[in-house]
Amino acid sequence: MRKLEDLQALIATSVEQLKFPLYPAELYEPITYILSIGGKRMRPALLLMACDLFGGDVEAALPPALAIEVFHNFTLMHDDIMDVAPLRRGRATVHEKWNQNVAILSGDVMLIEGYKLMMQVRDNILRRVLDIFNETAVGVCEGQQLDMTFETSTDINIADYINMIRLKTAVVLGGALKIGALIGEASETDADLLSDFGVNLGIAFQLQDDILDVYGDPLKFGKQVGGDIISNKKTYLLLKAQQLATGTNAEELAGWLSKTQFDAAEKVTAVTQIYNSADVRTYAEAEMQTYAEKAFAALEKINLPEDSKQYLRDFADGLLVREY
Amino acid sequence: MRKLEDLQALIATSVEQLKFPLYPAELYEPITYILSIGGKRMRPALLLMACDLFGGDVEAALPPALAIEVFHNFTLMHDDIMDVAPLRRGRATVHEKWNQNVAILSGDVMLIEGYKLMMQVRDNILRRVLDIFNETAVGVCEGQQLDMTFETSTDINIADYINMIRLKTAVVLGGALKIGALIGEASETDADLLSDFGVNLGIAFQLQDDILDVYGDPLKFGKQVGGDIISNKKTYLLLKAQQLATGTNAEELAGWLSKTQFDAAEKVTAVTQIYNSADVRTYAEAEMQTYAEKAFAALEKINLPEDSKQYLRDFADGLLVREY
Repeated sequence: MRKLEDLQALIATSVEQLKFPLYPAELYEPITYILSIGGKRMRPALLLMACDLFGGDVEAALPPALAIEVFHNFTLMHDDIMDVAPLRRGRATVHEKWNQNVAILSGDVMLIEGYKLMMQVRDNILRRVLDIFNETAVGVCEGQQLDMTFETSTDINIADYINMIRLKTAVVLGGALKIGALIGEASETDADLLSDFGVNLGIAFQLQDDILDVYGDPLKFGKQVGGDIISNKKTYLLLKAQQLATGTNAEELAGWLSKTQFDAAEKVTAVTQIYNSADVRTYAEAEMQTYAEKAFAALEKINLPEDSKQYLRDFADGLLVREY
Repeated sequence: MRKLEDLQALIATSVEQLKFPLYPAELYEPITYILSIGGKRMRPALLLMACDLFGGDVEAALPPALAIEVFHNFTLMHDDIMDVAPLRRGRATVHEKWNQNVAILSGDVMLIEGYKLMMQVRDNILRRVLDIFNETAVGVCEGQQLDMTFETSTDINIADYINMIRLKTAVVLGGALKIGALIGEASETDADLLSDFGVNLGIAFQLQDDILDVYGDPLKFGKQVGGDIISNKKTYLLLKAQQLATGTNAEELAGWLSKTQFDAAEKVTAVTQIYNSADVRTYAEAEMQTYAEKAFAALEKINLPEDSKQYLRDFADGLLVREY
């Protein structure tokens, strides 16, 4: 089995070698630009990993893996417009560096380029692979729409939230793994199980991200601690706190959510205190554990040798306990 | 052979029956909305027509025909954002009726839904059909980008312009015809010839539209006569006039192009006068004729019975002399 870091490095090199037409420059330069900003290349690496685990040809899986990366960056390009984000990984976003119309249209063409890359699979799995890609892509769009809708909704429950993060974050991990498995000639059953593993792991990972936002080590987490609290993001922790908090805690929480002028550090401290009173971290960790266990349960059923399963367990463990 | 109007009516009915998920409503309602605004459904009807001409099953070609219509409406939804257009066919555009983010994301999902529909073809042509769809879709995006770039460029020549309208308008006609032909089991050669017919006809049609914008009968044309002149749109007529006009005509034309405050009717009259002096209408009609002849030349080479060719000739004649 190839190491995950090696697969990520292979993707990074292959992304650099992706060539797009030179004309019209404003259509294609932003694609090369956003792909050069980097990231961990986790999604395409998962596709290669799945192919490798089932004994498939990792090189043959490269174009579909790149498809997943190009697709992911298409969603980033359009999400950045919708979020009015000036920066991505410290670099200007495409709509800032060029303009919004360029970001819309370059994103559109990236989605099409994603299909072109995804089609570079054997004829006998072409339809299956594209069905999975379609389903994944629709899911990600639905998740993004729900995320935006939730920003202004007041009656979101935890099931809604879990469904949103499943669509926005987790299905693409499942889709990448499933496509990789099929390229590696896994059975449909094994491919489905590996997809389940990925989706549940993705949900657990996002819940962990919610927890880390509040309780993570700022040095290890790499983002501003309390960012979700400052922006009133409806994370698992907030929804659970709204559900559980009573009396003055409930009033105080509602107060912080409605304040438009505040000291950020003060808000983070106060809301964290309310979270602690309601013990929402324990609930969040239990929920995360539930999805991690679903992931491991799916993994156990896959028809793969023990060392391959251990590889996947190690991968999941690495993902889920990295930053405390 | 089925009549074009019947095929258009079949598409109209099928579009009405297209069902999308109910949730998230903000993602899918705009799709149903923009598809309900109507239009002549010419592109999907061409796909059905091509299938029918080669003796294929028109009903089996319906999903790919709908794919072309969904794709076309995806481009309209995003183009309307880029053009800051408040209205489409007298109805509020999606970004006006909802908001811009909804229009971006609904458009994205429409493109994916287009692929889902396009995949509903026989396995043995799936890859070919999707290759054509990809190429068509990329072409349309390139054409839209060039159209936007040309708005602020000062050194566009007529070859650039023809290339832009080929990509933005004509390739999708060629693509629809080619896909329909393949579904109807046409040979690759005949499908290519029918595509050439469509692309050249599309260019001729767009040149006619440029001419009609200035010289058309306002009652028949259905748009504001002189709209392109008012907005300084770099049409064939303007580019040719800039190339040919000399002396005071050239100065006067440059003057009108740089004016930001003007009486619209006065500008239309003055610029039309300059066009007349340079005789650009004659050049435009000759150019249009050139592309019409290329279309007819391709048509003649197609291996189809004479009555089928006559059907296509009648169709082209109907398209090219409708509004004078």
